[in-house]
Amino acid sequence: MIEVNVELKDRRYPIRIGSHILAESSSYAPLKCGDKVMIVSNPTVAKHYLTTVSDSLNRLGCKVSSVLIPDGEQYKTLDSLNLIFTALLQANHGRDTTIIALGGGVVGDVAGFAAASYQRGVRLLQIPTTLLSQVDSSVGGKTGVNHALGKNMIGAFYQPCAVIIDSASLDTLPKREVFAGLAEVIKYGAILDLAFFDWLEQHIDDLVSLQPQQLQYCIQRCCQLKADVVARDETEQGDRALLNLGHTFGHAIETHLGYGSWLHGEAVAVGMLMAADLSHLLGNLSRQDVFRLEKLLARANLPTVSPDGMSADDYLPLMMRDKKVLAGKLRLVLLQRLGQAYVTTNSDSELVRQAINHCSQFD
Amino acid sequence: MIEVNVELKDRRYPIRIGSHILAESSSYAPLKCGDKVMIVSNPTVAKHYLTTVSDSLNRLGCKVSSVLIPDGEQYKTLDSLNLIFTALLQANHGRDTTIIALGGGVVGDVAGFAAASYQRGVRLLQIPTTLLSQVDSSVGGKTGVNHALGKNMIGAFYQPCAVIIDSASLDTLPKREVFAGLAEVIKYGAILDLAFFDWLEQHIDDLVSLQPQQLQYCIQRCCQLKADVVARDETEQGDRALLNLGHTFGHAIETHLGYGSWLHGEAVAVGMLMAADLSHLLGNLSRQDVFRLEKLLARANLPTVSPDGMSADDYLPLMMRDKKVLAGKLRLVLLQRLGQAYVTTNSDSELVRQAINHCSQFD
Repeated sequence: MIEVNVELKDRRYPIRIGSHILAESSSYAPLKCGDKVMIVSNPTVAKHYLTTVSDSLNRLGCKVSSVLIPDGEQYKTLDSLNLIFTALLQANHGRDTTIIALGGGVVGDVAGFAAASYQRGVRLLQIPTTLLSQVDSSVGGKTGVNHALGKNMIGAFYQPCAVIIDSASLDTLPKREVFAGLAEVIKYGAILDLAFFDWLEQHIDDLVSLQPQQLQYCIQRCCQLKADVVARDETEQGDRALLNLGHTFGHAIETHLGYGSWLHGEAVAVGMLMAADLSHLLGNLSRQDVFRLEKLLARANLPTVSPDGMSADDYLPLMMRDKKVLAGKLRLVLLQRLGQAYVTTNSDSELVRQAINHCSQFD
Repeated sequence: MIEVNVELKDRRYPIRIGSHILAESSSYAPLKCGDKVMIVSNPTVAKHYLTTVSDSLNRLGCKVSSVLIPDGEQYKTLDSLNLIFTALLQANHGRDTTIIALGGGVVGDVAGFAAASYQRGVRLLQIPTTLLSQVDSSVGGKTGVNHALGKNMIGAFYQPCAVIIDSASLDTLPKREVFAGLAEVIKYGAILDLAFFDWLEQHIDDLVSLQPQQLQYCIQRCCQLKADVVARDETEQGDRALLNLGHTFGHAIETHLGYGSWLHGEAVAVGMLMAADLSHLLGNLSRQDVFRLEKLLARANLPTVSPDGMSADDYLPLMMRDKKVLAGKLRLVLLQRLGQAYVTTNSDSELVRQAINHCSQFD
């Protein structure tokens, strides 16, 4: 079991990474005998792992309840949040309870926001079971739900007391979701770490075929990169925004198609290419590096063109609803070069349109 | 205009108290020219003050939107919260917006939680217009909504950037709500400040008849007492719990009757008497001081007996759902003497029943 620590101003928490560690009670510290816990999961994940996790916690002497929310991004809503509150109240959980998020990004975000807001805050433990949530959403404390008018518009910054990542849980994950997770993995290389980007070009096939050793190194590296960024900037006043490379374009895709059509990672893949193309148009990233990114995404079986029929006119109004919009100006994350990103509010909308069109099917 | 400051670990904010100060633009600092604001109110309060506040903000150069939520405790729900999010998204409010809560406790709590969770947190300014919210809920950062299974079960600690208290707004408040607010005023004397309790015994008639000078002193004293407690204990790990005198009993009354039947302050009045009676049964508070409290509450036109037909069997299960329950044990705020409160988990349930019965109509 490897440990990566997230160092915050007033607190630190561990990310534990290993294979088959959900079956070991020692993975669950700081939980201990007598603690009351509520496991939040969805039916798909619960089928595979709820018994394993409950058994480990029962051996530890915890009092375990569980609640399932429906599976899918379209259920990342205030209604699902309320399901969790109802279960907590029905089972008389007090302020001393711990919420355990067992599942992918949706479960982690909704259960995390439930922990942030139940009785104004209870303890949270994250057990991400998808690659996407393991390398991204479970670390750093962003929690929340969607609104019909925009993604992730309601939520809180709320840090877990620990994150437990069992790389073996990827064995039961649909391949398409593994690929979607690789989009965020590639993102870390592109924005922060050229050496890791090089490593990914050498090992992307191993990751696609879930080679355990490469997978664990990859998860560890991504968690370390994210932990460093979060430690520097917990509430996204600065550097943390770099993690949103491709997300402003990607959110527009997800909102346009309706949640649950394209996976988040798939939308981010195309969004990153648009951001890379725009970076090139602005004279930063070289044409060759745009191709390197495109090729790596394609080898991870990710889409590299816009959804059918979606044009720049569809993107721009949706992009203006992004949380990063400040004083009515679009803020975009772009690439100076591979391994180095920056944030700008100076992006000519005509060039943004061009970049979108370059990555569209009618181009 | 008087200013009382709330001193927190990493920040301070002012409470401005005065008469007719909503009409002065200078009351609204730190808001300034160019700021986007969303005023949250309800139809009753909006009728009296929305134009005044909007005009002041427009003169300051702010871009003002507003949204109304229905009036009443039964609308302190996730649905009302969502109304605010929809209004914010439809008017393209970004992370740099400010939410202004213009109204009583319900508006303050719901709008405050909206500010805490919209895009993971935007700026909040409180303008409480009821006595209850002026002396209590607008100061200290408790925000949230109710759940069908319990009051205030969903929320966040989220501090405003300023609180603006216009004592003249009480002129339009129904008398019954003024009295309900006096319950919390009397509470401050009972738990923290015997001299203020004495002062209240001398001036309660002036407060009931809304004498401006006495009213402003009373609001200032309560805000100062609350600010001191919040500064010592922002997230209620210790002393802040004392502010809940009578609330565990009171919440049981509110939940049993359904929200909106008794006012919060009315339920707290009876709850305080129960707590005082229990304190006496435990050998602390003198019989005479229980009577002093009862008499002061009665002079403020507050109820001093349980609702018709509600018995100890109705109270206890509801009290066990209180947020202060820890490891399944009831935690109650009791009085050592007038002006000094303490928290205990050692309250024999038979004595709790007796105290409830002493304050019940069939007793």
